Amino acid sequence: MSDAIQVNDPSPGLGDVPGFLTAGTACDVRNTGKERLDLALVYSPTACTAAGVFTTNDVKAAPVLVDQEVLASGKPIHGFVVNSGNANACTGTQGMADAREMLTLSEQAAGAPSGSFFVCSTGRIGRVMPMANLRKGIANAGSALDSSTTQSDKAANAILTSDTKPKTVTTRFVWQSKTITVSGMGKGAGMIEPNMATMLAFIATNASVAQPLLQQVLIAANARSFNGITVDGDMSTNDTVLLLANGMSGIEVASENAELLSLFQEAVDIVCRKLAEKIVGDGERVTKFVRLFIKGAPTPTAAEKVARAIGNSLLVKTSWFGSDPNWGRLMDAAGYARIGLIEEKIDLFYNDVPALLQGMPQDANLAQWKSIVTQKEFSITLNLNLGEAGFDLLATDLSTGYVDFNKSE
Amino acid sequence: MSDAIQVNDPSPGLGDVPGFLTAGTACDVRNTGKERLDLALVYSPTACTAAGVFTTNDVKAAPVLVDQEVLASGKPIHGFVVNSGNANACTGTQGMADAREMLTLSEQAAGAPSGSFFVCSTGRIGRVMPMANLRKGIANAGSALDSSTTQSDKAANAILTSDTKPKTVTTRFVWQSKTITVSGMGKGAGMIEPNMATMLAFIATNASVAQPLLQQVLIAANARSFNGITVDGDMSTNDTVLLLANGMSGIEVASENAELLSLFQEAVDIVCRKLAEKIVGDGERVTKFVRLFIKGAPTPTAAEKVARAIGNSLLVKTSWFGSDPNWGRLMDAAGYARIGLIEEKIDLFYNDVPALLQGMPQDANLAQWKSIVTQKEFSITLNLNLGEAGFDLLATDLSTGYVDFNKSE
Repeated sequence: MSDAIQVNDPSPGLGDVPGFLTAGTACDVRNTGKERLDLALVYSPTACTAAGVFTTNDVKAAPVLVDQEVLASGKPIHGFVVNSGNANACTGTQGMADAREMLTLSEQAAGAPSGSFFVCSTGRIGRVMPMANLRKGIANAGSALDSSTTQSDKAANAILTSDTKPKTVTTRFVWQSKTITVSGMGKGAGMIEPNMATMLAFIATNASVAQPLLQQVLIAANARSFNGITVDGDMSTNDTVLLLANGMSGIEVASENAELLSLFQEAVDIVCRKLAEKIVGDGERVTKFVRLFIKGAPTPTAAEKVARAIGNSLLVKTSWFGSDPNWGRLMDAAGYARIGLIEEKIDLFYNDVPALLQGMPQDANLAQWKSIVTQKEFSITLNLNLGEAGFDLLATDLSTGYVDFNKSE
Repeated sequence: MSDAIQVNDPSPGLGDVPGFLTAGTACDVRNTGKERLDLALVYSPTACTAAGVFTTNDVKAAPVLVDQEVLASGKPIHGFVVNSGNANACTGTQGMADAREMLTLSEQAAGAPSGSFFVCSTGRIGRVMPMANLRKGIANAGSALDSSTTQSDKAANAILTSDTKPKTVTTRFVWQSKTITVSGMGKGAGMIEPNMATMLAFIATNASVAQPLLQQVLIAANARSFNGITVDGDMSTNDTVLLLANGMSGIEVASENAELLSLFQEAVDIVCRKLAEKIVGDGERVTKFVRLFIKGAPTPTAAEKVARAIGNSLLVKTSWFGSDPNWGRLMDAAGYARIGLIEEKIDLFYNDVPALLQGMPQDANLAQWKSIVTQKEFSITLNLNLGEAGFDLLATDLSTGYVDFNKSE
């Protein structure tokens, strides 16, 4: 990590970025009659460029489809609205109409031009949005928009579902005596309500970045962060990462300035990685946090396949829950990724302690592995010794608590 | 099912087939000092043709590698030996030597020619075989070989690990006044000891079938049975299905006789399907047994992908455990199989009751779905309406009991 970048973790969230106004309100999206923050509005009076990464699930929620249209329009962006408590997924044409209405109402409430907002939803699938509540909530949020940390905190809380705490981080660096700020807020891979493992992340910056470059930066940061985490292997209909740049610092990040671009990329990377770690760490009823380092794979795709086979194996995950250094289950999972693994070449380590070298068990180290896997956080390095490619995955255990939590609505 | 085929379920197992001798003994493979049946020997004094289907895991246990050599040799087969309690996997060159020694000792104990036996192991990974115990056990099993149902029962029990009961079935049909018998015994997809989800199945028949045709029959039966079940999505280093035909009925099954071949295929299919159902039904701490019928897929591969995404989704499996008719999780899982599913075309049924028609929720039926998913067994039909291909998968729920059972050795 570059010394030039200052990290504030946790932070007030998007309100940390000059020129961004935020609000968080309660409008009873869940229709339970209870007061709970469930609507966030973020607005930049200055026009932004924007980048977005969306779920690749064939079943996309209405807000994802609408946001993809907004992004494709190429129009200047001014903000977004997010609700928790209802995913607006599998809701047909009514869901599309509701997502569009949420956009329009949010633009009007903020005083922004038409076509300049995104909309994100997270929560239950298959239930029509309670638009009467949302109309009130959006109007209230519009009135509440300001640059205070109070509203910024409320916004970071309003996007949560089963998360146990808000997830925010801010990075800053100085360039030509001006401060570039990159802030993010996110919500977890824990199931929603407990219906879905939706991951949402919102990043704002006062740098000036042209759209194609901004998209490139976000794709790179996403590949090194959100794409490298797993709680349960499920991919939601609503997963979305948005990055807005309002340029208010007066500093333009461009390909021609490699040093500045590299600093900016690193700042965005840090924000994404910190949010990803918070999401995994706050996974539902998670008791272990395991960094899987796959090395020596023939291709990056092969490395990722092996990592995901291990990180999503029920047998591996339950053994982590039980603090059992069961490398046999790891080998089995690696093997069924079927990337052409050769048992006799494999080195496997718990932290730095060898469990297998060239495929042979190092039983003398058993006491050390056992001690390592009792820790809440540890790493497992699997070197296939077949090539140069690798993949890092942050994974979690599977607890009885997880099953209990998710067994019904 | 053809009326011509008589099914005996459960049955005495392989001892039901004329000309096959069996034995089951206890030789303490687990080295616990406890008396437990853990070695099965099966022997046909008459030479057999044999077919085999093996795990496609990159990490194959020593006995799988040895059996693939035996099958490739094309030599006449006389039997096999199976132990539970140790998988002989990830055991390097010592493991290969041990597997070969088990073969040779078994051939000698039975009085069979060299190169005429298979060997299968199931149990813990990464532990060297306790060969002193196995040498005694194989010699004892050789002496015990007979055609009694007592030994056949013992054999069916000796191959079990975490299974709660033996799994056997026999089918019979008459052809030209002679009875063709096809019998099978299997062990479960429940984790072993609780290390591995090894699935083993052994089928014997007194039909006469040339090797290439026998292999073809087994591959077809396997595709319609063992390949269509899932408990936890893990695929073991030791999975093996063997089919031996000793020809003692005097009836030859050949491609030229389509009617006889069809009856024989059906008899083998029934044996494999019944064993597969028993394996899933006896999955570790399983409380629900769900038949997933994917229809209207563009290709068979796409249908299988969707079925496995649903059947292995933690969120779907935990909702079944909780008797929650959560079709949103099903849609999400179907979507991340990424086969090009179109939400607006999907029909979804719990048993015969529509939950979605053309992608629209049929909420009026909610009480009916809720009632269906409280049952121990039910079906879910997902019609993608994109083509003509389908895939059937027998799946199970994920219980807190499963996690507790598998969290440590």
